[in-house]
Amino acid sequence: MVRAAGGVEVAALSPDGASVAPIASLEEFWAEPHGLLAARPAGGDALPVSDVRLVPPVLPDARVICIGLNYRAHVAEGSYADQEFPEHPTLFARWTRSLTVGDTPVPVPVDEAGLDWEGEVMAYVGAPLVDADPESALTAVLGYSTFNDLTARRAQKLTSQWTLGKNADHSGPLGPLVPADEVGDLRDGLRISTRVNGETVQQASTAQIVHDVGRTLALVSRTLTLRPGDLLATGTPAGVGYARTPPWLLQPGDVVEVEVERLGVLRTPVVGAGHRHRTR
Amino acid sequence: MVRAAGGVEVAALSPDGASVAPIASLEEFWAEPHGLLAARPAGGDALPVSDVRLVPPVLPDARVICIGLNYRAHVAEGSYADQEFPEHPTLFARWTRSLTVGDTPVPVPVDEAGLDWEGEVMAYVGAPLVDADPESALTAVLGYSTFNDLTARRAQKLTSQWTLGKNADHSGPLGPLVPADEVGDLRDGLRISTRVNGETVQQASTAQIVHDVGRTLALVSRTLTLRPGDLLATGTPAGVGYARTPPWLLQPGDVVEVEVERLGVLRTPVVGAGHRHRTR
Repeated sequence: MVRAAGGVEVAALSPDGASVAPIASLEEFWAEPHGLLAARPAGGDALPVSDVRLVPPVLPDARVICIGLNYRAHVAEGSYADQEFPEHPTLFARWTRSLTVGDTPVPVPVDEAGLDWEGEVMAYVGAPLVDADPESALTAVLGYSTFNDLTARRAQKLTSQWTLGKNADHSGPLGPLVPADEVGDLRDGLRISTRVNGETVQQASTAQIVHDVGRTLALVSRTLTLRPGDLLATGTPAGVGYARTPPWLLQPGDVVEVEVERLGVLRTPVVGAGHRHRTR
Repeated sequence: MVRAAGGVEVAALSPDGASVAPIASLEEFWAEPHGLLAARPAGGDALPVSDVRLVPPVLPDARVICIGLNYRAHVAEGSYADQEFPEHPTLFARWTRSLTVGDTPVPVPVDEAGLDWEGEVMAYVGAPLVDADPESALTAVLGYSTFNDLTARRAQKLTSQWTLGKNADHSGPLGPLVPADEVGDLRDGLRISTRVNGETVQQASTAQIVHDVGRTLALVSRTLTLRPGDLLATGTPAGVGYARTPPWLLQPGDVVEVEVERLGVLRTPVVGAGHRHRTR
């Protein structure tokens, strides 16, 4: 498992989560990610987690490419239910500034009735890709982590484009990166679930993903050159809050958890809009 | 006028464009942009432009927020003509890696019949904004530049979300930043035009912008905290290529220019898809 500590170092997180062992600076790590991840330290120079600030191991200019509408049951529950299932992956963008780590409080923006949960798996690109084929693209994946694509639904649906509602402050928590060889192929099916205050609200298998990681990265690489450190969020299964009757959105005081087999649990507390003014 | 030289320094460009005088590192500049821009050097320590590599003065983690559908005549010519003019700004995202400077060759991706032009004005946010009002948001704007939102139309229209087609390699050229006090208010009307191989294809006034800079930034700030260095592209007027009969898209060998009153001319040559493999 790897997390960045102090904003600049990529580090290995100890199995108990109590300490981190630095591997390389963020830029050095992504210049040679497969080699550095395989050679990660045993923990001799480990620092207590309490001495560092954890941030995601993400380059500031990484693209955070997100697939919407990628599990059939999720499409069937939402606003796009009356349309044919999209033949191509529906790709939207997050900026890296929306990303954070687990246990970071996420504020509900002032105009929203709450935030919606979207438990997901994030894939981390580990090699350059230009006009790649799906197999090469999948081989280039360095690892995976949990991800919660927390969504400001009102802002998302103000217009045809979802961008604003997908980039609220701290709305993209990421769990620690787990190397691809420890995770296997998402198409073989990892259990994924989301819980709100302990109650299960999403439960599915990554085998239900329609547009898979290799084919999606290959498609993207035909328009833009993927770089090591770019991210691909693989979409959320059914069970989101806005599609329920009545709708159910996260309120200040709630805690949402995303759990993915082999990737762990990602916990996020929700706070009020006033928190944004205090932390700018 | 300000450009970044060598990838790290923000610099003042001489009126003849032949030399640059460094002002501050990119991070230092955006930590105090209004003060540093006002105090920009007279050019004593200027370097010849030929000795530096020009890049846009944009932080790697800046958000590049783009307004689509923001001139009525452009909406009327395109895919959204049969829908009501959007009440809110239609916001989509570019990642900073798609940005470049003038005279950088832009490749046509392999699946595209060409690239489409979209001449625009870019606004540069110069102060943090949280739940801001429109007047404060407009006051926070540091300056403006020319922008060409070069679009891979096929990729843009594969699905409901435009992200992929708006982030092709080198597809977002920016001209030099001009301080806001030298530009004035876009609502008063700057002439904007686009030329392909010398032929005028877009001609309008920024007074025709519907969702103005102040109100749009204020809206955005109610969901995400804007930071100094974030960008807002203000949309393109009528005259794009895909909406013509027959369609007209940029081909390798073409040269496209965006000219905006007080902001100058932004020139971009178009090259073939093979260029992507050579420059990765």
